[in-house]
Amino acid sequence: MSGFTPSLEKLIEQFARLPSVGRKSAQRLAFYMLSMSDEDAQKFTDTILTARSSIKRCSVCCNLTDGEICSVCSSPSRDKSTICVVEDPRDVIALERTHEYNGLYHVLHGVISPMNDINPEDICIKELLLRLSDDTVKEIIMATNPTVEGEATSMYISRLIKPLGVNVSRLAYGVPVGADLEYADEFTLIRALEGRNEL
Amino acid sequence: MSGFTPSLEKLIEQFARLPSVGRKSAQRLAFYMLSMSDEDAQKFTDTILTARSSIKRCSVCCNLTDGEICSVCSSPSRDKSTICVVEDPRDVIALERTHEYNGLYHVLHGVISPMNDINPEDICIKELLLRLSDDTVKEIIMATNPTVEGEATSMYISRLIKPLGVNVSRLAYGVPVGADLEYADEFTLIRALEGRNEL
Repeated sequence: MSGFTPSLEKLIEQFARLPSVGRKSAQRLAFYMLSMSDEDAQKFTDTILTARSSIKRCSVCCNLTDGEICSVCSSPSRDKSTICVVEDPRDVIALERTHEYNGLYHVLHGVISPMNDINPEDICIKELLLRLSDDTVKEIIMATNPTVEGEATSMYISRLIKPLGVNVSRLAYGVPVGADLEYADEFTLIRALEGRNEL
Repeated sequence: MSGFTPSLEKLIEQFARLPSVGRKSAQRLAFYMLSMSDEDAQKFTDTILTARSSIKRCSVCCNLTDGEICSVCSSPSRDKSTICVVEDPRDVIALERTHEYNGLYHVLHGVISPMNDINPEDICIKELLLRLSDDTVKEIIMATNPTVEGEATSMYISRLIKPLGVNVSRLAYGVPVGADLEYADEFTLIRALEGRNEL
């Protein structure tokens, strides 16, 4: 037994189930919850339930959105001929921060991973293929993570798409800007050498 | 703008307000909340609200409890002649883990800190004095944290209690077991020298 009163123990357990929250952090969070004002605590729980009920996947790109279609897909100023395919909604945010890309996105919500029993039909690949049924889209940029699963997923999707006559490209590999060559791993260096550009 | 849809942004903000949760962790927690099953999410929010409504301060020792009187105060096997005074309910858990102390506790819920506008009447000192009104209690062990405020609070309380004819003691200062002398600060070493015991 931990020594905490049962309701408090249950509260700590709930927080300890969250990702990267250990027992000590869970205790701190539980005590913080008890110290909040009634209004703040109610707002906290309401926000969780409201977000869960109102956030859906965009019916076009599968990104998370409050409405039916997300702000990128519904924006008239975006270039509708290019789709950047990412694994996760957070990747969209990362790319949007660059202010360089003006095309559309497609969020897969995962990668193919037979080891974890995630098959092509478990991620949003068919929704991507649906978007290619007319001739609007000219290029697909694969921006899955540079991991084994990310790579395999990119390859799988590009093989499905190429027969449709759409160009498929991949984010460039290389040394990250500001990094130290000394600490770059050999695979990154090999890719950086292979992808070298003329000066 | 962050790029997240409004409900998700609000959810992230709620998590970012929690102690030691930064923006990135808040994002991770918010996404985790969205990925939970309906049942788990409902249980999470219910546990928070239930804990807040059912956890009260023990009417004797001010420790947190689900009932009227906490399990330590209501236990017939505890030694009712000794009270250990701590700042926080978590300190009770730490002392209980030793399995060495069999007396009662008193939780102050803070320390006197004029800098933060916390005065003696803001913490549970009067509740402690009430417990000394009959002759049951023979000794008070001050176990506030070894900080300036903790010290000052101990001194303040001991000056109130001593005239009542109750013994007041203080947790020993010294080098922590398993620590390296080399890294002990000078104040700890001075206290350890002063409190040296004959072998």
